[in-house]
Amino acid sequence: MQKLYYGAAYYPELWPEAVIAEDMRYMQKAGINCVRMGEFAWAAMEPHEGEISLDFFVAIINRLHAAGIGTVFCTPTPTPPIWLSHGHPERMYTDNRGYPMAHGARQHVCTNNPYLRERGRLIVEACARAVGRLPGVIGWQTDNEFKCHVGECCCAECVRQWHEWLEARYGTVARLNDAWGTAVWSEAYERFDQVPAPMATTMGHNAALQTMYRLFHREKIAEFQREQVAIIRRHSDAPITHNSNRNFLLDNELLLRDLDFASFDNYPDCDHWQEMLLDYDLWRNGKAGRPFWVMETSPAHNGGLWGYHKPHRTGYLVAEAVAAYASGAEGFSHWLWRQQRAGVEQNHGAVLSAWGTPTVGYAGVLGVSAARALLEPVLLNSAPAQREVAMTYSDRARAYFITEPYDVGQYIPLARRWFDVLLAAGLPRDLLFEGAALDGYKLLTTPFVPYLSPEYLARARAFVEAGGLWIAGPLTGGRTGEHTVPTDAALGALEGLAGVETLYTYPLTNTGALGVAFGQAAPLTGWAATFLPTGAAAMGVLEGGVTPGLAFITEHQVGKGKLVLLGALPEGEDGAALLAAMFRHYAAEAGVAPALETSSGTIALPRTDDTGLFWVVVNMDGWGGTAALPAPAVDLLNREQFPAGTLELAAYGWRAIRMV
Amino acid sequence: MQKLYYGAAYYPELWPEAVIAEDMRYMQKAGINCVRMGEFAWAAMEPHEGEISLDFFVAIINRLHAAGIGTVFCTPTPTPPIWLSHGHPERMYTDNRGYPMAHGARQHVCTNNPYLRERGRLIVEACARAVGRLPGVIGWQTDNEFKCHVGECCCAECVRQWHEWLEARYGTVARLNDAWGTAVWSEAYERFDQVPAPMATTMGHNAALQTMYRLFHREKIAEFQREQVAIIRRHSDAPITHNSNRNFLLDNELLLRDLDFASFDNYPDCDHWQEMLLDYDLWRNGKAGRPFWVMETSPAHNGGLWGYHKPHRTGYLVAEAVAAYASGAEGFSHWLWRQQRAGVEQNHGAVLSAWGTPTVGYAGVLGVSAARALLEPVLLNSAPAQREVAMTYSDRARAYFITEPYDVGQYIPLARRWFDVLLAAGLPRDLLFEGAALDGYKLLTTPFVPYLSPEYLARARAFVEAGGLWIAGPLTGGRTGEHTVPTDAALGALEGLAGVETLYTYPLTNTGALGVAFGQAAPLTGWAATFLPTGAAAMGVLEGGVTPGLAFITEHQVGKGKLVLLGALPEGEDGAALLAAMFRHYAAEAGVAPALETSSGTIALPRTDDTGLFWVVVNMDGWGGTAALPAPAVDLLNREQFPAGTLELAAYGWRAIRMV
Amino acid sequence: MQKLYYGAAYYPELWPEAVIAEDMRYMQKAGINCVRMGEFAWAAMEPHEGEISLDFFVAIINRLHAAGIGTVFCTPTPTPPIWLSHGHPERMYTDNRGYPMAHGARQHVCTNNPYLRERGRLIVEACARAVGRLPGVIGWQTDNEFKCHVGECCCAECVRQWHEWLEARYGTVARLNDAWGTAVWSEAYERFDQVPAPMATTMGHNAALQTMYRLFHREKIAEFQREQVAIIRRHSDAPITHNSNRNFLLDNELLLRDLDFASFDNYPDCDHWQEMLLDYDLWRNGKAGRPFWVMETSPAHNGGLWGYHKPHRTGYLVAEAVAAYASGAEGFSHWLWRQQRAGVEQNHGAVLSAWGTPTVGYAGVLGVSAARALLEPVLLNSAPAQREVAMTYSDRARAYFITEPYDVGQYIPLARRWFDVLLAAGLPRDLLFEGAALDGYKLLTTPFVPYLSPEYLARARAFVEAGGLWIAGPLTGGRTGEHTVPTDAALGALEGLAGVETLYTYPLTNTGALGVAFGQAAPLTGWAATFLPTGAAAMGVLEGGVTPGLAFITEHQVGKGKLVLLGALPEGEDGAALLAAMFRHYAAEAGVAPALETSSGTIALPRTDDTGLFWVVVNMDGWGGTAALPAPAVDLLNREQFPAGTLELAAYGWRAIRMV
Repeated sequence: MQKLYYGAAYYPELWPEAVIAEDMRYMQKAGINCVRMGEFAWAAMEPHEGEISLDFFVAIINRLHAAGIGTVFCTPTPTPPIWLSHGHPERMYTDNRGYPMAHGARQHVCTNNPYLRERGRLIVEACARAVGRLPGVIGWQTDNEFKCHVGECCCAECVRQWHEWLEARYGTVARLNDAWGTAVWSEAYERFDQVPAPMATTMGHNAALQTMYRLFHREKIAEFQREQVAIIRRHSDAPITHNSNRNFLLDNELLLRDLDFASFDNYPDCDHWQEMLLDYDLWRNGKAGRPFWVMETSPAHNGGLWGYHKPHRTGYLVAEAVAAYASGAEGFSHWLWRQQRAGVEQNHGAVLSAWGTPTVGYAGVLGVSAARALLEPVLLNSAPAQREVAMTYSDRARAYFITEPYDVGQYIPLARRWFDVLLAAGLPRDLLFEGAALDGYKLLTTPFVPYLSPEYLARARAFVEAGGLWIAGPLTGGRTGEHTVPTDAALGALEGLAGVETLYTYPLTNTGALGVAFGQAAPLTGWAATFLPTGAAAMGVLEGGVTPGLAFITEHQVGKGKLVLLGALPEGEDGAALLAAMFRHYAAEAGVAPALETSSGTIALPRTDDTGLFWVVVNMDGWGGTAALPAPAVDLLNREQFPAGTLELAAYGWRAIRMV
Repeated sequence: MQKLYYGAAYYPELWPEAVIAEDMRYMQKAGINCVRMGEFAWAAMEPHEGEISLDFFVAIINRLHAAGIGTVFCTPTPTPPIWLSHGHPERMYTDNRGYPMAHGARQHVCTNNPYLRERGRLIVEACARAVGRLPGVIGWQTDNEFKCHVGECCCAECVRQWHEWLEARYGTVARLNDAWGTAVWSEAYERFDQVPAPMATTMGHNAALQTMYRLFHREKIAEFQREQVAIIRRHSDAPITHNSNRNFLLDNELLLRDLDFASFDNYPDCDHWQEMLLDYDLWRNGKAGRPFWVMETSPAHNGGLWGYHKPHRTGYLVAEAVAAYASGAEGFSHWLWRQQRAGVEQNHGAVLSAWGTPTVGYAGVLGVSAARALLEPVLLNSAPAQREVAMTYSDRARAYFITEPYDVGQYIPLARRWFDVLLAAGLPRDLLFEGAALDGYKLLTTPFVPYLSPEYLARARAFVEAGGLWIAGPLTGGRTGEHTVPTDAALGALEGLAGVETLYTYPLTNTGALGVAFGQAAPLTGWAATFLPTGAAAMGVLEGGVTPGLAFITEHQVGKGKLVLLGALPEGEDGAALLAAMFRHYAAEAGVAPALETSSGTIALPRTDDTGLFWVVVNMDGWGGTAALPAPAVDLLNREQFPAGTLELAAYGWRAIRMV
Repeated sequence: MQKLYYGAAYYPELWPEAVIAEDMRYMQKAGINCVRMGEFAWAAMEPHEGEISLDFFVAIINRLHAAGIGTVFCTPTPTPPIWLSHGHPERMYTDNRGYPMAHGARQHVCTNNPYLRERGRLIVEACARAVGRLPGVIGWQTDNEFKCHVGECCCAECVRQWHEWLEARYGTVARLNDAWGTAVWSEAYERFDQVPAPMATTMGHNAALQTMYRLFHREKIAEFQREQVAIIRRHSDAPITHNSNRNFLLDNELLLRDLDFASFDNYPDCDHWQEMLLDYDLWRNGKAGRPFWVMETSPAHNGGLWGYHKPHRTGYLVAEAVAAYASGAEGFSHWLWRQQRAGVEQNHGAVLSAWGTPTVGYAGVLGVSAARALLEPVLLNSAPAQREVAMTYSDRARAYFITEPYDVGQYIPLARRWFDVLLAAGLPRDLLFEGAALDGYKLLTTPFVPYLSPEYLARARAFVEAGGLWIAGPLTGGRTGEHTVPTDAALGALEGLAGVETLYTYPLTNTGALGVAFGQAAPLTGWAATFLPTGAAAMGVLEGGVTPGLAFITEHQVGKGKLVLLGALPEGEDGAALLAAMFRHYAAEAGVAPALETSSGTIALPRTDDTGLFWVVVNMDGWGGTAALPAPAVDLLNREQFPAGTLELAAYGWRAIRMV
């Protein structure tokens, strides 16, 4: 990492030259050193079919470069021009009732449509050729927020490719029928071409069909990106990313396989700062060894015709950016530079207003610029410290939960809840996609992953055998890779490894069942597995309800390590307390070093440099806070010295602190 | 009745031979003496068009028979195979926007489609021929839960048959126009083929068109069943049923006309046991002189991808089954035997898990088996005692309420509310479909029946003239058979018979109107008729609101009996108290013998044998309870003796008690 | 004005002769002196295509005339007969997913369909020829409640006309692209015929496209009416109206341009009497110099298959009608005369029941008749007094708010809230459509008008320069005529005139921002503009939140008058108090004469005659009330005299009072 970037999304194609000139002056004033550009500009690049020119953008990039501002250039495929969409309903994104979307929004053309693919390759090639070697281009972004507005298209072409995908996956339709259990309800297929997309039906589609259709589309959008990446690489050495978001219907791990660095967009308001923290902990690990970017966040507030989030409180923006950089971000970039004067997002927070004056967010932008400059020397010479706790974050699990929510809701809020428990327990953590290596960790937690792949299970087992502590569950391991129920044991291979027999699986919600463990008691909720320990020890036991006395938490020695199995989800505040107690217990057992202790709402981000460990402490909630210094310390930025004891932080205050 | 059956739905077509063998052993262990089979197996019987074989099922039935287990065999028409649905949108169930459903669920093919009918007759014929004379076949079920997932199909073929139906009903389009009042809004038709199905429109369709379309579809599904029944009867003497449910869009009375015995499916959790009781009281009378079956209920919990009901509390299942048998059930059967490993209902409660172990519901199943064996001798030699209170239950009324809910909601919750009042008033009751004979009853209640047919009115009148006490209303009699407003009097012919003039009909909700009667006062709600007694006496009077002083309850001597007219619905707890007081008052006047007095949550079911009356008392709410013995009594099962006074029942406890 | 009319909607085409004869007798008994007729009778007039006869209606009109009852005759176009709709989905109203509506409701045929237009002209011509010169015809109504059930049709023909409309508006597609800002998201069009209707899409359509499609349809329905008006005028001198309603998707000002007098339909229950008052204050100004009509309101309760409003409390109907007449109504008419026996509105309140007896509303009708007779001499010799406060009411603004609700909801509830503040502040007011002249007013308020047209701005500026006091905002002036954001200043030309610079526009909801002004403080909500006064004075200042210290209310001398700018919406009860304080402050400053002071729930309506000012005071809330007489007074109807001081009014009581 050579530099910390501070940027904004920039749409020079929307404005006249006088405004552009003013923009560039203002960017320098505001300390913006990079922009992102081009993602919605297909019509500007190719206003009529085949009439492609990138001259405008080349000139802008060069002018920006001359002003010291780098450019992340985007492929413009999320917004196909009217010549591609008009009169071609068969090319449009089609919903599950066969209805094709109208032109005028985003992602309205199906990304599996062959002609979109063809024209997409041409425009990406044109972009890559035109700007790929420009010195101002510091990176690429493929498309924009894949699937931010759409789910699984059901157009005829998608259904055709679905059949190909099924054939490739299953080989014979008999294997599909067996894998999916299509004997149920006489669903059975005679040929692949008979398998429907999950379009509207009378009751519901087979879980397997639903989940597989989701996985099919996740693979297809990765294929779409792969085409673009291959083209860009032929003409450019700049690193490539995609501005993703956990809420989109994607397999991020698959997308990242073809990319050079991870980036994400998110827009929580200041009262939901934990969302950003979760993202930092996840995307930092998106591409091992490469820092991530916050590619889009608002300088003030998210907004559009639909309404708005509330604007950030004064001071928050600096805390958010400092936490990003300290968490491992190389870039922090706003959407958007200048408020749009038209369209759907006229009211979105920006750095400049549509009439060219500083917005309500501008003061925060100046603050971030100042902080970036101050932090840069310290952060370029250090790196995020290795975390010892890993939490698996699974987009595949999310697809399963959409099909089957187990009475506990959707994956993303569940994962957030887990994250909050780790945060409250004071455990610095990495969120890892399913395929990530587990080296360097002491404690692994795998909640809400219905299907444990053999690869994952093998990796987790090796981790445990080598001395790791693995907490699996709740709702982990009870489904096969085809979204069916195992027929060997409730949790398949996991049970044997965990030294338990699952006696019963059934829903605990409103049964009065209490879970008692680690000195805590909490109601249990949702679909559950209740255990009879065979080799394992019962660590949490059911009281009341239908099966009192059975275990819902067990632990089992495996090799040098331990496998903890959690069969049910503790609910509410008592549940969070039980889970925090569990994590503290096992973190201590695993020898996890706790974070620098802070008051709630204040965080401590560990980094290491040649000298060793230091902490960036940030008050995130705007109420001020404290950190408990175990020893005298020094602020690495201004060399201020502090005795051991309580370090006070102002509202949204922050410091880089090393114990001395 | 030769036997009490205890059964489960069985899907051997989903499992390999080893599992089937294990299933049969477990069934015997669990005391299961019958299974239901085949309803979703069309693709197993006819995997490719015209390739029909029932050999697998014949073998299974014979093996089960050898193991002492009878089979209820089903026609497999609810799940047409892919060769019937693929590529034929015109065959699919079509919603009111013309959208045809996708393959893969249930009831996705329109049951009025001629080709479905043709292939349906062939497969039913094949089934009937193959298994109709097998000794193991103890009964038949047509299809499965008609209309459980669908309403009124709007496919082109349905619309064509709708036109035929209208022509048969009205003869000329002028008569239709007059009957429906199509002069309103220039709706008038020139030809039958112009009459639309009630597909989406700008505001709403004529009440007549809406309600008639519902009745048309109810007749058509009965016609579909009639075809199957006729075929089965040619090849089998086993009695035929259909597993219905009050919530489906059916005319159950019409369906039962072609059947040999009544059965139903329902899945309330243990906290909603009154639902089951209502069903027992209704379906017992579904086919006069023939015992009913509970064809499906869960051993533990209803569930699916959508979520779950909560599992029954320990002990409830036995109480539920005992109450069923004592109420007149010959069979009590679970859905399902073995948890499905795939599809939409993977999580539904079962007797065995998908991996072959007893589920959380298994202990209850053993309890039911034991109770069944204990009860069998007593119940086979007795019968449910004749009830003296009858409540009319009308599927036609339900169709009217869907069209016009009168500000009081839908028919099923309203009927449930009425049932609860009768239950609270301690009146053993029969629920009767509209066409049932009224012999043997002393008190008839007819709530929520907007259209009183001339046949019904004549029968009720005869009942009253012969000395019966008839309570008509609320919301009874205010509509014609075409769902229009009478133009002779607000309640048509009912008014004259009741000795009142309806002064005003108008909505009472939130007007502040109180109904005062039988020492009680309660707010009145919904559409109401307010009366000026002509020959009748005012028994309940309005206070406050817009028309204070008018009557809302009147009574009128007719022949040897009395007609009580109820013009408005008392609301909330006060309303329930007022209604209970009214029922107790008139039950006493009619000489209705009250039930054995029990504490709330405990029920007493009267039966008679050669010796006379006895009671099966059951604690249904799981909190234990009491019955007040008016004399010394003996438990018919274990000969235990009790003095007069309070009999204690444990949680979910039950006894068969005769006063001695 | 020669007469006060009291009427009812009458449907003789639905009933046999005996009922019609009875109707006419009853109308005379009830004091009904006019009916409205024909609007849903197209099928009665032309049962088969081309077979037109108006003979039935001519005879009825003549019979009514002979009975002293005038007729408002309607064109029957809202309910096209089956021969026009059957088999022609392309003629039907089509939703934004391309789905055409079914026959049988109202407005189911697209009013832009050329064949509907052609047949519509023929039937209107036939009506006009047949009844246009009959002495009984006192007026005409075009169609019925345009757009009461439909929004913006998306049929192919509408889309074609949309393209014509766009071409007429923009000339070249380049101008459209620039005006709409279609460079955003590569929406840009190459030809007009590519511009979609705002049919379902992935995220949302450009604000400009959405709002323009609304305006297009508003113009088209006015064009439809214009065709009818031109035909009627060739055959009749009777004045023409349309029974509109603020809730329909219309440009009422445009519709009124072609009409002779204004009328409206509304059905609030008695607890929402302020709705009627607002309508009186608006529609009185619908057609300058011509009295308005309440064309439809219920004698008792609104109702239909969907449910009901509650019936009016006893006495309310008279208060409602008196307030209408005193507010300037020439006619007050019910829907409907006789309860319909069939269709969708069987349960709607009427004067007579379907079986020919007086309904629960009948007593109120007699009361209105008596009041009408009593009031007539006084009202015919007087006129509503000139109001001094004007509030702009904008259907165009409403179209903008549908596209962009600014976090404060929709226009109609916002306008109602503003109206309530004026009412609470005791300021007699006119509501004026945008184009109305401002002569005679002292205070103008223009809330919630995102686009201020140059014409409006010039008129308001002239009003201020001549000494008027103009309160502009909140949410006024921040959008262009194409629904884009101004690029010169946040509020465009308004800012310079107001002597402010808008520093920031951003959403205030939940930011903690308080507005402090006129001795009041209230939370501020929604999208806001915050000001730096340049020439103006800050009169209201922000406390807390993100930009404390900035102004949200400013005032600025312009010519002889003053422009007050309001940048944000005060919320809740505190907000209402702040706004009332503001209005009282500026009304006093502008020299507005306050209304006769009344207790809350009682109103005082000023009128003038040759002698001068008098007041019709009415208790509207049914709890009785008082007026504070500043001097001795006389009741103009019964000459009763009162001393200065408190005048008591009974529940729903009313008087015409002059100070003497």
